[in-house]
Amino acid sequence: MKVSGRHYRTIWLSKKDPAVVRIIDQRFLPHRFVIEDLTGVDAVARAIADMHVRGAGLIGAAAGFGMYLAALAADHGSVPAFLDCLSAKGEQLKATRPTAVNLAFAVDRQLAAVTAAGGGIDARIAAARQTAQTIADEDAGFCRRIGRHGVKLIEAISRRKSGGVVNILTHCNAGWLAFVDFGSATAPIYAAFDRGIQVHVWVDETRPRNQGAGLTAWELGRHGVPHTVIVDNAGGHLMQHGQVDLVITGTDRTTVTGDVANKIGTYLKALAARDNGVPFYVALPSSTFDWSMTDGVREIPIENRDPEEVRSVQGRHNGEIVTVQLTPDGSPAANFAFDVTPSRLVTGLITERGICRATRSDILGLFPEKT
Amino acid sequence: MKVSGRHYRTIWLSKKDPAVVRIIDQRFLPHRFVIEDLTGVDAVARAIADMHVRGAGLIGAAAGFGMYLAALAADHGSVPAFLDCLSAKGEQLKATRPTAVNLAFAVDRQLAAVTAAGGGIDARIAAARQTAQTIADEDAGFCRRIGRHGVKLIEAISRRKSGGVVNILTHCNAGWLAFVDFGSATAPIYAAFDRGIQVHVWVDETRPRNQGAGLTAWELGRHGVPHTVIVDNAGGHLMQHGQVDLVITGTDRTTVTGDVANKIGTYLKALAARDNGVPFYVALPSSTFDWSMTDGVREIPIENRDPEEVRSVQGRHNGEIVTVQLTPDGSPAANFAFDVTPSRLVTGLITERGICRATRSDILGLFPEKT
Repeated sequence: MKVSGRHYRTIWLSKKDPAVVRIIDQRFLPHRFVIEDLTGVDAVARAIADMHVRGAGLIGAAAGFGMYLAALAADHGSVPAFLDCLSAKGEQLKATRPTAVNLAFAVDRQLAAVTAAGGGIDARIAAARQTAQTIADEDAGFCRRIGRHGVKLIEAISRRKSGGVVNILTHCNAGWLAFVDFGSATAPIYAAFDRGIQVHVWVDETRPRNQGAGLTAWELGRHGVPHTVIVDNAGGHLMQHGQVDLVITGTDRTTVTGDVANKIGTYLKALAARDNGVPFYVALPSSTFDWSMTDGVREIPIENRDPEEVRSVQGRHNGEIVTVQLTPDGSPAANFAFDVTPSRLVTGLITERGICRATRSDILGLFPEKT
Repeated sequence: MKVSGRHYRTIWLSKKDPAVVRIIDQRFLPHRFVIEDLTGVDAVARAIADMHVRGAGLIGAAAGFGMYLAALAADHGSVPAFLDCLSAKGEQLKATRPTAVNLAFAVDRQLAAVTAAGGGIDARIAAARQTAQTIADEDAGFCRRIGRHGVKLIEAISRRKSGGVVNILTHCNAGWLAFVDFGSATAPIYAAFDRGIQVHVWVDETRPRNQGAGLTAWELGRHGVPHTVIVDNAGGHLMQHGQVDLVITGTDRTTVTGDVANKIGTYLKALAARDNGVPFYVALPSSTFDWSMTDGVREIPIENRDPEEVRSVQGRHNGEIVTVQLTPDGSPAANFAFDVTPSRLVTGLITERGICRATRSDILGLFPEKT
């Protein structure tokens, strides 16, 4: 999508030096637009763990490029040593964000690709580079198609409201900043906006890391989409008063039975949507499905992050980005990064192949190769 | 309750100068403990509007003292002029926080008292002073009794858990800082803690003004009650995983039918409690009942506060209290201060007269004089 009139992806290989991966360092948004150069897999792992990059699709793409950088730097003495080295780096990458299924998916895909490539080290490095680029391109393509399918939901509401504004609530950032381009939850919104449909987005700020207030509001604003930032507490009240026509969120992992792991607080919005008859959709590329799990609440591991993210928050003060303490000295905090919304609260899933109900039979109906 | 070993109320008449009302200026908590002197009704109105004082009971007490200061400064030329003047100041006070029913209650009680007092101006000023003190004392007494009733709920859970820790979630600050003393939602917790029952409190930070992270955590910490600060998004996840035995919140206005207006986000916690079979109680002195309203979601006015409270947050940085901007320049925000939890989601109400279901018949059963 565009920033100051120029098209960007969130991650790309440097044209000047193909051993350098470039990213938008999201830690400084919305206050500063910073490009960071990553020159090795350890830097990529750090960028994922410390959330220079975040979001389901982008983490996967970053892991893909990280494995390519790992291949460049691995033991080139023998193919088995090379593969062992890559495998170890893959484990290191997987450990950075345990809830994100795209991460493991990208690592495993790279390991399979370099193994299957055959030949010498150079051929395998070439395979890793090609696979990294393919993962990124596929992600962007999936998101574009999610937009094409999801926009129909917005069009239908717009028609029902005789062209009146369609109010959409979203939580966290499942925008293009969370993917390689377009986003998942935002793709239908951008598609609707680009077709001239009147839309307005309620943006949950999404404490503790404020991906809504900092990232979603920023990218919607850059694209010109009308939006209003609200605290995470406000969505229920808005739904009670008819101010939300549709909820669309992303997901970090969705089970084959339709249980949705997403940013902490998503479950509360799903409950409010159900209580007020508001449709609650989850947008995801199929890479985010976990085909092995059937009970999301019990099985999906929930990352516990640093309590300091709760005890403090980052913002701009006198032009500087500073972190301020919110809690009293000595008060402990807990920081669960995700929650799981049971499939019974999900109206439907918007995937690159179309929209389906959040049930095993409907999901496998769209993805029959997974049965 | 105690601060650094010394007992405080949140508001009191200066012993040295009975024309001065002293308050804890809560804008600087949890980072600085500041006492402010208010020397006239306009200062009291400002202190309420700008939230030097906040919370259902404390706003009522402040309005009571404000009307006494108004009486001191009113037109003393004639009794009708005096009463007109007081009535106008009462309207000014009522306009500061439209959702808080205790405010209107205290103002009207003062107007009735000075009217009924008879005699000259001096007698009416004395009546206003006496009434202000009575409102404050009653508030503290009501909260103490709420604690005595509510502690039974905690004792029962403690017994069921064979003395294991009782985990209680609360939203916003309905602690002693929101009243004159003891608090409403916290009164049963303090009572349980003082009896040696193992309790632990999950403290919702309560964006946008962070009354949980800043005030509830501070006052629980001062009293030594184990607690953990969480973001407002986390409660549903905790309930899904059996980490919450009981929710207790306060309320700013509760209808005679049991609909509960409280800090924005309360409704979301009530939905999660219902979805997970967690009891959801609301603690309130009867002064918080609105005996005239029957449909809280439709009838209770919801205050729209300055969007700047959403766009930024206050915290401590390098020892200074500063405000940092969270949102991108140019992104609008909305700031609904309260929401309404329908009575169907409320397990029960804890009042100074005992615990009842959130139904008209049970509420009027406890307060038959209101039928």
